[in-house]
This record gives sequence, structure tokens and C-alpha cells, in this order.
Amino acid sequence: MKIGITGTGSYIPSLITKNEDFLEHEFLELDGSSFHQDNGTIIEKFQAITGIGERRYAEPNLKTSDLGFLAAEKALTDANIDKETLDYIIFAHNFGDMTYGKIQGDTLPSLATRVKHLLKINNPRCVAYDLIFGCPGWIEGVIQATAFIKSGMAKKCLVIGGETLSRVIDPHDRDSMIFSDGAGATIIEASDTSGEILSHASVTYANEEAYYLYFDKTNSAKGCKDTRFIKMYGRKIYEFACSHVPQAMKDCLDKSGVNIDQVKKIFIHQANEKMDEAIIKRFYRLYGQEVPIDIMPMSIHKLGNSSVATVPTLYDLVLKGKLSDHQLKKGDVVLFASVGAGMNINAIAYRY
Amino acid sequence: MKIGITGTGSYIPSLITKNEDFLEHEFLELDGSSFHQDNGTIIEKFQAITGIGERRYAEPNLKTSDLGFLAAEKALTDANIDKETLDYIIFAHNFGDMTYGKIQGDTLPSLATRVKHLLKINNPRCVAYDLIFGCPGWIEGVIQATAFIKSGMAKKCLVIGGETLSRVIDPHDRDSMIFSDGAGATIIEASDTSGEILSHASVTYANEEAYYLYFDKTNSAKGCKDTRFIKMYGRKIYEFACSHVPQAMKDCLDKSGVNIDQVKKIFIHQANEKMDEAIIKRFYRLYGQEVPIDIMPMSIHKLGNSSVATVPTLYDLVLKGKLSDHQLKKGDVVLFASVGAGMNINAIAYRY
Repeated sequence: MKIGITGTGSYIPSLITKNEDFLEHEFLELDGSSFHQDNGTIIEKFQAITGIGERRYAEPNLKTSDLGFLAAEKALTDANIDKETLDYIIFAHNFGDMTYGKIQGDTLPSLATRVKHLLKINNPRCVAYDLIFGCPGWIEGVIQATAFIKSGMAKKCLVIGGETLSRVIDPHDRDSMIFSDGAGATIIEASDTSGEILSHASVTYANEEAYYLYFDKTNSAKGCKDTRFIKMYGRKIYEFACSHVPQAMKDCLDKSGVNIDQVKKIFIHQANEKMDEAIIKRFYRLYGQEVPIDIMPMSIHKLGNSSVATVPTLYDLVLKGKLSDHQLKKGDVVLFASVGAGMNINAIAYRY
Repeated sequence: MKIGITGTGSYIPSLITKNEDFLEHEFLELDGSSFHQDNGTIIEKFQAITGIGERRYAEPNLKTSDLGFLAAEKALTDANIDKETLDYIIFAHNFGDMTYGKIQGDTLPSLATRVKHLLKINNPRCVAYDLIFGCPGWIEGVIQATAFIKSGMAKKCLVIGGETLSRVIDPHDRDSMIFSDGAGATIIEASDTSGEILSHASVTYANEEAYYLYFDKTNSAKGCKDTRFIKMYGRKIYEFACSHVPQAMKDCLDKSGVNIDQVKKIFIHQANEKMDEAIIKRFYRLYGQEVPIDIMPMSIHKLGNSSVATVPTLYDLVLKGKLSDHQLKKGDVVLFASVGAGMNINAIAYRY
């Protein structure tokens, strides 16, 4: 029995924020002190490292569950299945539904239930739950769906990754420029004609790494002490990711039995372009090889880092022919890989 | 291969709030109007229906993840396993870590990661994630652990249900008296000598039921419009639960092949005593039987409704001999059942 992805969809919000829109921001160090550089220089360096030139923010009337619903509708259409045959809706996110301009996340009910509600699915046996696993949440949801199918508990699962990070960012933190909003959705099912999940790997590093991404107050001494935002130790995350992601990807690929030469594309979490390049370089070095040309589709330049949404969105863009330099042929082997809060890392080897 | 519960633990917070502690509260209707009864009468009726005389609130210095950690330590000791052999930590909750006196939940990193951090587990292959599934989250976590073990992805899983509802309640809502804090934890593993999960059932009703439990502002017109609390349509939930939970329990038991006469105990979510009694009565009526004496251990009188924590805590209390009217013998069949936000219902038939 092959378990594969039979449909994909994504929702890319329409609101574009360009790097120059941050020129008037008052960026501050973590301790509240000023930078010794002007914003123009900060932004230039930011773009050189992350690759991000602009990012998308959700329309104020939409929440994370709405983005997930819009992506899910497309994935269902793409898979051409009856929504009432879904056994699971798995929604990966990290902050719940954030209302525009408010600070509390809402997970009552779960975002998966909200999507089921919006999809108007009547079948109560379609079980809807949310998964919190940092940025690697969508890949982890696919792994969980695979477990349910393998163990006979499910046949068809909808796995969504959605986030509105624009609503949890500190305007006084230059790292805020990284984050964006979006959602990607996929249908996972056992099918003779679909692609095939060949192997996976997941790890959680929770010693000193546990709080590399964390929730804390603004960098501005004038800001509210009680409002918390997404925060990160970027340099530590960079080093952590370069140290551990390549090996997790190798563990995954080696389990699949597929040779490194057969890997046609790597869909990696769009966290930071230089970091992604460094990870891929080290990954190939583990096999004594150079990085092949065009192995790594990137969407970060225009879409930023939308957490759980990046990998399913990127995959959807390639399959729908929206990244013209990248195509997949039936039988091609690809890797999905992600790293993020937890600190979690995971990967899937997949035959398209 | 039998998959069973090999260890249990719970953490019951030390702070007791009695019903009379609510005598001075200004309770209001949803629309902000006053009740035509005094608080003494409201509390008397509340206790007659829910059975709750007092409830536990977490100590201010502890958050949900701390309660979960304290329960998990006991479960690991009880199961007598090396913590480094855990393949999964699954933490079911609904509001993240709420800091005492603050209104934002924190899930960055996940509560499962926080528990792994506190347990000082080094093995990165112990994958830590959070699950949001309303009050039935702990049972759903056990079902997911079972899927991982059956599919060969895991051998040992720690499943925790923990919540600090005292930090998301509206002081002007009489329903707030229902809610409490706590955590329960269990080790799930394949073992020849353990008990055995015989069958399970899970359903999500997401049509008009989706928002029976929801997050909204205080009932007081004087309160902050932007702060949201746990809210519920109690009457609708009562009717929903009585209509759907008995059948889900029957579906589960019938799948196990065990006769209703062999069921020795039912560990049901401690939501409301009258509702739980009505559910069990209807469940037995589906088999044309009366409810047996002492079938349903209850902790709600002293502990209130601590959401995901009630079922694993109740089970732990019985196994540890802390509910003197209730014992289990090796081979006894029991049912776990829960209902809550989503609206989700689930059940497990288990041979002790």
C-alpha cells in the first residue's frame, strides 16, 4: 500500500509588505538599546541574509483558520475526493486564531474544527484536531496521518499548516521582518496511483535549545510589559539548524533506501535563505557531494517565513507550475524538511 | 501485541476554592443583566446539578506545563521505565501556558517540549508535540499513541492532559464555578504484562455544535472588551452530550467485542455530575439495562472540571487506592469516555 499526497492547495494572502515599509520602524536591541546602524543598512543586511524582499500579511478580516479553510478547499478540489470521506483534519499552527489588532490566540474550538465547520462536513467520524510542533508542524501532521493510515485508523486525511505571524510580531524587533502569513493544505491517502511517502525522521531537542524561539515582551521600554510576541535567538538557531538538520535529512533519506543522486528537489522550510543554503550544503557534504543546481525551490524572497505554511505552499506552487524553474515528473524523489520551535526537526522522503 | 497503560500519575493543585468563596461574586447573564436570584441560591442550584462543592486552582508560580511535568514524573516512576526510552511526549491542553494574572496563552515552545526540558530528556528521538482536542484531548492522545505503536513508529509514549482553567474564567460568569486546574499523565506501551486497549471511537461534530464552547468577553459591561474567557452554552452541551456520547461509547464497546455485563468501571470526563449520570443511564438503556451500582467513580465533588486532566487523574486516583469505593482487578474491562469543545467525543475500551 502506497501512502501519498493526492491533492495540494495553498492560500497566499493578498497584502504585500515590502522591506522599505520597515524604514520608519524604531528597531531596538533585545535590551532596549538602539542599533548603531540606520534602518536602511539593517534592512539591506537583513535581505542579504534571509533573501526576503517582501512578505504577505493576512487581510484583517481573515484569521489563521480562514486561511487554512481556503487552502483546504483547493486541496480537496485538487484531490477530487468527497469531503465527507475525510477521516481526519489535522491543523498545524502555533498561536491559534489571532484576531487582527488583538493579543489573545483563540483555540476554542480548535482550528481544525473551524475548518470542518467552514467546509460544512457533516460526517462526525471526520476527527478534527490541532497540532503544535513549531514550524515543522505540517510535516509532522503528514507523519501522523501516515501513522493513522498504516494502523488502519484512517484512509484519507486533510493536513493543513497555517499561521498569521504578522499578529504576533514585535514592531521594535528587526527579526519581525522575517515573519509572514499563509496556509498550505494537502490530502494524504493510500492510493495505488498516488506518490509514496518512503520514510520520515522527527526529532525534538529540548535541552538548552528549548527556548531558542520563545514568547516575550517588546524590545521597547515604552511598550506594554504584559503583551508577548514571537522572539528568537537567530544566531543560535542558525548554528543549531546547520548542526542538526543535515543529519536528520540524511537519516530520513537513508531509511528510504534511495540514493542521494536520485533526489530531484528539496522542499525546505523557508526560514532564511542563507541558513537553508548552508543546511543543504552540509547535507550534500555528508554524502561527499556538491549541491546540484536547482535542487532547492525557494519562495522566501516574495513570501517570507510563514512558519508551518512554507513547505506545503512551496510544494503546491511547484506542482501548479507557479515556480517556472522547477518541475516534477512522476517518480521523482523529493525531500521535505523543516526546523523550528521545539526545537523540532523533521523530514520526509517522497516519491512523486 | 497488547498496547496498554503501564504507568499513571497526576498532579492535584493544593489551592482549594470552595463554593462559598463565590458568594460575593457579581454573577451576570450573558447579556450583562442581573440574575433574579441571590448568589446563595445560584450556588445551591449549581452544586445540585454539577455535584461540585469545591475545586482546585494551580499555585500562582505553576503553569500548565509544570502541572504536566509533575504528573509525568509520577507516571514514569510508576511505569518504572527509563525516561530516555520514550518515543513521544504528547501533551493535550487547550489554552497553552497561562501565566497567573496574564491573558495570553504561551505555546512557544510547545508544552510537550517544556515537559521534556523539565524531565531533562536528552534523546532527540523522543518527539514532543501538543494536541488540541477540547476536554477529550487526553483520550485522543492515547489513541494517537496507539496508532504510533501499531504502525511501528513508537514503542513507548508519555501522554499528558493538563490545564489551568482558573486562568481563563470570567469572574462574572456563574459557569466559571465549574472549572478547575490539574494534570494527569500516563505511559502507553506495548507490553505482554500490561493491560490492553481493546478498541476506541472518536467523533467531531462541527456544524451548529462547533461553537457550543467558545472564547469571548466577560458578561460584565464594565469589563475589558478585548479580554476573552472560556464560555459555554451549558444547556446545549448537556443535550448534545446526552444525545451523542452514549452511542459513541456503545460503538467503542461493541468494536471491542466485550459484553456490557463485563464492564466494571466507566471513567467519564468530570464535566457535570447530573450530565454524567444522564449519559451513563442512556448508555445502559442502549443495552436495555439499568446502571450498575458503583460503575462510575467520580472526583468532581472535590476537584471540579479540569478539562483534559479529569479522566487520567480519576484513573490514577482509583489505581492508587485514593477512591476507597472503587478498585480494579487484573482483567477487568473499563471504559474511558469524554466530551468537550470541538465538539469532540471519544471513548476507549480497556482491559486492565
